Amino acid sequence: MWAKSLTTVVQNAAKTSGVRAASTILPGEPKEPIVVTSEIPGPKSKQLISELDTVTQSGTIQFFADYQNSIGNYIADVDGNKYLDIFMQISSMPLGYNHPEMLNVFKDEESLKVLVNRPALGAFPTEYWPKKLKEVLMSVSPGLPNVMTMMCGSCSNENAYKCLFMAYRKHQRGEDVDFSELEKSSCMVNQPPGAPNLSLLSFHGGFHGRTIGTLSTTHSKAIHKLDIPAFDWPVAPFPKYKYPLEQNERENRLEDEKCLAAVEELIEKYNKKGCPVAGIIIEPIQSEGGDNEASPEFFQQLQRIAKKHGAGFLVDEVQTGGGATGKMWCHEHFNLDNPPDIVTFSKKMLTGGFYHNLDHKPTQTYRIYNTWMGDPSKLLLLESYLKVVKQQNLLDQVNTVGAKLKAGLHQCQNEFPILNSVRGRGSFLAVNLETSALRDKVVANLKKKGILTGGSGELAIRFRPSLTLQENHVNIFLDRFKQVLKELN
Amino acid sequence: MWAKSLTTVVQNAAKTSGVRAASTILPGEPKEPIVVTSEIPGPKSKQLISELDTVTQSGTIQFFADYQNSIGNYIADVDGNKYLDIFMQISSMPLGYNHPEMLNVFKDEESLKVLVNRPALGAFPTEYWPKKLKEVLMSVSPGLPNVMTMMCGSCSNENAYKCLFMAYRKHQRGEDVDFSELEKSSCMVNQPPGAPNLSLLSFHGGFHGRTIGTLSTTHSKAIHKLDIPAFDWPVAPFPKYKYPLEQNERENRLEDEKCLAAVEELIEKYNKKGCPVAGIIIEPIQSEGGDNEASPEFFQQLQRIAKKHGAGFLVDEVQTGGGATGKMWCHEHFNLDNPPDIVTFSKKMLTGGFYHNLDHKPTQTYRIYNTWMGDPSKLLLLESYLKVVKQQNLLDQVNTVGAKLKAGLHQCQNEFPILNSVRGRGSFLAVNLETSALRDKVVANLKKKGILTGGSGELAIRFRPSLTLQENHVNIFLDRFKQVLKELN
Repeated sequence: MWAKSLTTVVQNAAKTSGVRAASTILPGEPKEPIVVTSEIPGPKSKQLISELDTVTQSGTIQFFADYQNSIGNYIADVDGNKYLDIFMQISSMPLGYNHPEMLNVFKDEESLKVLVNRPALGAFPTEYWPKKLKEVLMSVSPGLPNVMTMMCGSCSNENAYKCLFMAYRKHQRGEDVDFSELEKSSCMVNQPPGAPNLSLLSFHGGFHGRTIGTLSTTHSKAIHKLDIPAFDWPVAPFPKYKYPLEQNERENRLEDEKCLAAVEELIEKYNKKGCPVAGIIIEPIQSEGGDNEASPEFFQQLQRIAKKHGAGFLVDEVQTGGGATGKMWCHEHFNLDNPPDIVTFSKKMLTGGFYHNLDHKPTQTYRIYNTWMGDPSKLLLLESYLKVVKQQNLLDQVNTVGAKLKAGLHQCQNEFPILNSVRGRGSFLAVNLETSALRDKVVANLKKKGILTGGSGELAIRFRPSLTLQENHVNIFLDRFKQVLKELN
Repeated sequence: MWAKSLTTVVQNAAKTSGVRAASTILPGEPKEPIVVTSEIPGPKSKQLISELDTVTQSGTIQFFADYQNSIGNYIADVDGNKYLDIFMQISSMPLGYNHPEMLNVFKDEESLKVLVNRPALGAFPTEYWPKKLKEVLMSVSPGLPNVMTMMCGSCSNENAYKCLFMAYRKHQRGEDVDFSELEKSSCMVNQPPGAPNLSLLSFHGGFHGRTIGTLSTTHSKAIHKLDIPAFDWPVAPFPKYKYPLEQNERENRLEDEKCLAAVEELIEKYNKKGCPVAGIIIEPIQSEGGDNEASPEFFQQLQRIAKKHGAGFLVDEVQTGGGATGKMWCHEHFNLDNPPDIVTFSKKMLTGGFYHNLDHKPTQTYRIYNTWMGDPSKLLLLESYLKVVKQQNLLDQVNTVGAKLKAGLHQCQNEFPILNSVRGRGSFLAVNLETSALRDKVVANLKKKGILTGGSGELAIRFRPSLTLQENHVNIFLDRFKQVLKELN
């Protein structure tokens, strides 16, 4: 598979896969969730949690899954429960479980060798690496000419941040000016000017990872940040909209303006105090910190502010990217003047990495580098995923099914006043409960009825289905959701 | 394979693999290096480098490899060259290329499903996860009771550093004392006391990764650090020994004492200036910054200093771990009073992660967490690797073959005065040239004779063979090495 062209693969797969374009439901999916234990986690999961706790932390385990028996949109657990999974491993797993196209990837010897002979991609890549980068990753580039692969979302952001700093200093120093001796010596002991006082502007409620660099731009929950040293970098307010949007246009526009003014003020403040803002980091939808969205106009203005102040503009699509918003990249909904300078990805993209413009390509070698620089076997999985997306028009399906889910959520919101602020794009949706306690209870009770969802921020339930979610799944979800909401009374 | 016990797998593999315990050379390895192009990279590699450069950085590419035709200790390139690989993808690839045990890992459907259904391990692990952690990772634990898996060396260090900070603050605050409201609010805007002024002490010449947090503890080359903001953290001198060690015992002991005194001074200085040292970070051999080694006594004393000042003691075995030093963990050569608080790993271990004691286990959930928390498919590869290590007594082989390589290097050093400071453990060895230019030339000329090695720091050639290196490989290397050294004259 590694050596064949994408087209050949698509044609062969279309002939042999047996997946009909009309339905993306995999044979073997249960007709509805099956819950056989009175408690979740069930007794076998509980036993395994105790066992796990003897060798590693176990407090975040929801249950032990049975991946051999999970299929499509349903995840099985070791106690025999089968859940309709609308959380999909925290917004990853783009085609659900055990998709035949994914299972096929490593069945030929060539791909197996790609998997087992893991190269240092920056030094000894495979013959097909340039071709694969072009045909797979660049085929869905958001208008940016270059890409680097990484291992995960945090590493993608960490390395992308470094590109922002390098580009900013390049502009300050002058394109062809070499590093000074003082820069070279001072950076070795973590001091300016070599390790300069530069900052990145991020937003309250943003989430960009938990490694120490990205953590300075993450502001979703205190427990992620407590006790960890952080850079003194500016944090701007992210718009908080009133819903329904149609009825609050004026107020929300004022909210945009207020937040944009705060961004400019912070940039000026940090520039003035000798710690200039080298970049602005933002999610198209704050996907961990409450599913907060902002208007296309907000993002357009923000990009212009970044440009005006010489700061790079990085859009973090780690959670939003890969198709769930109905476009490959959520920021493509925003009609920006230009593509962002950098777009980072991971999760549904199966490999981490980032797209970037040439201004953000390092001009010297070994500045963005590590042993593995990604994992080519993950690109093979992505190749298969993108093939299925095209073959089955999954972006269209996301828009259709997402619209149905959103309409259903609106209907629930009308029926149950404890719900509010239905929002999102494609099938990447959220709804708020009145309190955190209520939200947690609804998520837990949904699970007891065999539906997996997740929390986001303080009040939201987030929906992160695979792209193969169909209308019948939505019907099942809405039915159980209404039951749960009724039983709250 | 996922579901079977390790013992069964070992028995079956012994029956079926056809690998004889007497030789670890794989059928199909060339008898010696084959170089067919006059230049390296050859014309096909050069063409591919230009192609790659249109979509990503390409300046660090040595050549394009042909992994389908690489085997054992030999890596093939796209131009038909076959190199004896004593660098092994920057010290990873523990069994060389296309080892049959590794190729077998994903041939059964169960393991394939582990690979394709990639879980959020912190939320929905597989039934066999506790068992695999115990039987695979804990079977080679350096005396530490717990382990966490991560994706790569940098992420392992990033998360391990967070554990150091959390443990330090726990001790300061008191085991059962909750976070204050001020801590919770201040951390959200990157300010103390929630995001406290704490530091980590690292060493000149150390390398711990290039993500922004770890980069503040990396001090091997300026180009890694230039333009990236860094924390003001203390950097201590690492011993610089005179060789041969036997003839410079007194001087090297004084060097140890000088460096240890500097460590204590720095700790006191940073504690006094309100940025206490929460941990000491060190490699057992500085594996990127020059293959600098320090004595067991140095490490023993360093651990005692850390303990005395309440700082955690982290040994970074990302490059040294996994067996190449003749023990599973290089620091096991040091006869420490106790295991380190944390030991990080990646590379030859195939999965990233870190072992830690219970004092460094987070007491609250979601503090060390991310979407994937590693990759269980990599643990399957590690399982096979460790099985081969046991089955073929590879640690013994490393010691025997390493001793032969070291003796040969000593002989070369006697013959060629431009060489000095032969050093290292097992087959994890290095030798210095007189200048950087000479070192680079020797590495390049070795490559032209079909031998891959790497540089380390300013002056050293580093040897990072797979554990399957045999005496005949050493003979071939020494022969070519002497040719190169002679031709320099």
